[in-house]
Amino acid sequence: MPENNLLHISKFVAPEVIFGLGALSQVGESAYRIGITKAFLVSDRGVMEAGWVDKALAYLKELGIDSCVWYDLTTNPKDTEVAVAAGQYLESGCDGIIAVGGGSPIDVAKAIAILATNGGQIKDYEGVNKITSPLPPMVIVSSTGGSGAEVSQFSMIVEKKRQVKMAIISKSLIPDIAIVDPLLLQTKSARLTAATGVDALSHAIEAYVSLAATALTDVHALAAMRLIASNLRESVACRTNLEAKSAMAMASLQAGLAFSNAILGATHAMTHQVDGLLDLHHGETNGILMPYVMEFNMISCGEKFANIAEALGVQTTGLGKWKAAERGIVAVRKLFRDIGIPQRLSEVGMREEHVQKLSQNALKDACLVTNPRDTSAAEIEDLYRRAL
Amino acid sequence: MPENNLLHISKFVAPEVIFGLGALSQVGESAYRIGITKAFLVSDRGVMEAGWVDKALAYLKELGIDSCVWYDLTTNPKDTEVAVAAGQYLESGCDGIIAVGGGSPIDVAKAIAILATNGGQIKDYEGVNKITSPLPPMVIVSSTGGSGAEVSQFSMIVEKKRQVKMAIISKSLIPDIAIVDPLLLQTKSARLTAATGVDALSHAIEAYVSLAATALTDVHALAAMRLIASNLRESVACRTNLEAKSAMAMASLQAGLAFSNAILGATHAMTHQVDGLLDLHHGETNGILMPYVMEFNMISCGEKFANIAEALGVQTTGLGKWKAAERGIVAVRKLFRDIGIPQRLSEVGMREEHVQKLSQNALKDACLVTNPRDTSAAEIEDLYRRAL
Ligand SMILES: [Fe+2]
Ligand SMILES: [Fe+2]
Repeated sequence: MPENNLLHISKFVAPEVIFGLGALSQVGESAYRIGITKAFLVSDRGVMEAGWVDKALAYLKELGIDSCVWYDLTTNPKDTEVAVAAGQYLESGCDGIIAVGGGSPIDVAKAIAILATNGGQIKDYEGVNKITSPLPPMVIVSSTGGSGAEVSQFSMIVEKKRQVKMAIISKSLIPDIAIVDPLLLQTKSARLTAATGVDALSHAIEAYVSLAATALTDVHALAAMRLIASNLRESVACRTNLEAKSAMAMASLQAGLAFSNAILGATHAMTHQVDGLLDLHHGETNGILMPYVMEFNMISCGEKFANIAEALGVQTTGLGKWKAAERGIVAVRKLFRDIGIPQRLSEVGMREEHVQKLSQNALKDACLVTNPRDTSAAEIEDLYRRAL
Repeated sequence: MPENNLLHISKFVAPEVIFGLGALSQVGESAYRIGITKAFLVSDRGVMEAGWVDKALAYLKELGIDSCVWYDLTTNPKDTEVAVAAGQYLESGCDGIIAVGGGSPIDVAKAIAILATNGGQIKDYEGVNKITSPLPPMVIVSSTGGSGAEVSQFSMIVEKKRQVKMAIISKSLIPDIAIVDPLLLQTKSARLTAATGVDALSHAIEAYVSLAATALTDVHALAAMRLIASNLRESVACRTNLEAKSAMAMASLQAGLAFSNAILGATHAMTHQVDGLLDLHHGETNGILMPYVMEFNMISCGEKFANIAEALGVQTTGLGKWKAAERGIVAVRKLFRDIGIPQRLSEVGMREEHVQKLSQNALKDACLVTNPRDTSAAEIEDLYRRAL
């Protein structure tokens, strides 16, 4: 742990967390405790079909809480979807918001909460600390081992017209209560399990090398890396491996605590642009770009990259820090190959003609500010091209 | 990290944390942000004389916040002191509570908050979850590398008549904002630095082996042990070693996050009784008792005790878990000797005639419930006698 992290003033914020197999059962009591009498429940089709929404509704009913369900959203949710949902929320007479699902429904639930009490359009809140009025009470039940959105101060929404993924960052986006139930991970496909696990690893690694990292975020980032290195393959391999699912849910949560407070870096700045343009799975794009960004960032903090290698289970004894750092990147590439993450952006539809525009947009992404290495437009273009 | 910790439903709660050298400067903005217009500021004589209260008052004034200061309290604060202070609070027209100091003023600030909105006497709230009405807004500025009270759901108050230290445990005792400024540790004596550091280590170790430990609390407990093993001696040795002070403040904070959520064990159950009877420094009593309690508890979770040894810097490669576990206890004893912690309870005034009564009371202490080894009255008596 670099001691200099202890010599600056930093803030750390986390919601109340309820974690464990069957924790979904706490959704009723949680909503009740924060004063929700009628809940606007945001989910997605996959989670609904798996039966988790019905379970949540029953738990809410037990506490006398009525609900409206909203699930009309896409993988990288759009501002247009949020606008419709917020209108529905205001008409519904609901007095609180519950998300049950992965990153997408959670981001939408947060965006609805913003519009519900702050008005306007969601793009008015792009950037840091643009929210002025307190949000409605919010409980988030996370169903993924990835996004970390259940504990983060981020909501990512695509502006459809510009094809740009906007980062909305504010402490008020941290829910009152985050519920993480590893049982909900069992109904995800292997592909989604792999992609969300990669997303969690990218959060842990980017938060750990972030310029805004602190001793507290480092602890969570390293713990997440250790859990992912020894459980992501197993979680992808077998839907019913509850130990692996629990470990990945805990890794996602801890990576979320880390990046919510330390912010991210160039991988996410670049991935957000691809997400916005091509509507791909965020985790897969991260997986393609991350090894290249790690190679680029390595010279800014070799020691930290050596620690990453060690957390990933690389035998680093006797290696110098640079050699250890390189082995860490090899380990990341091997992990991603093992779980079937695509290796080139061209495989997922990106082309040379996109490079310049995406690089310009990446330069403006809020996540680039905390990247440990100074980054020019030309360097970002070069990174996109290496991954093409 | 034992995977079985991931297979139960657990809760984790933490306040917003502002950490770093000079973080005291954030007290005005913090109080303002949570709606305090006139603050009841609780401190103690040592912290006042060091000038920290005047600094805090000036920061509050800058934000237009008036204050009343209360500092009439003793090392193990008494119910009688709390009753007077709560009366003053209600008369003062204050609408929020700020603590600036160590465990004692923080415990008193929390107790005042309870009586302010819940009425009655502080002993009415002894035990778990007895508080029903929300507390006034609360900012805690911690000046010690030990108690962890700035983030915990505990307040420890001595009932003067019974000479018993009561544990009041409730999520509502977690302040809105915890400010940890390592600069404030510079004005503590070497003896107090040693005692509070031992308290922090006892929190980390007891939380780590607690029956209520979780993956999240383990991460903080182990991080605290690592920081203490490599910074407590240095912090005791030199008042102006800011790296050591920062590391100890971070260790105390993380040990606090761990024990607030995982609770403690037999060391604290036994120490609380000695504190109540003899009015000693809590950290020194913990230091005397802890190695004996570790020896007693070891057979319940050898792996964990081996991990403790490793976190404390013991070279454990090639040792079996039992040998490693024993070396960890040796390391704890050596650390305590190096920083001048007394080694026997008889040195601090306890006598054989106290053993039976204290053992009876320890059996009823809330902290014993989570001790990893089942504990009888005879075993507690035996532990007190070994440490006499
Ligand atoms: Fe991400
Ligand atoms: Fe303690």
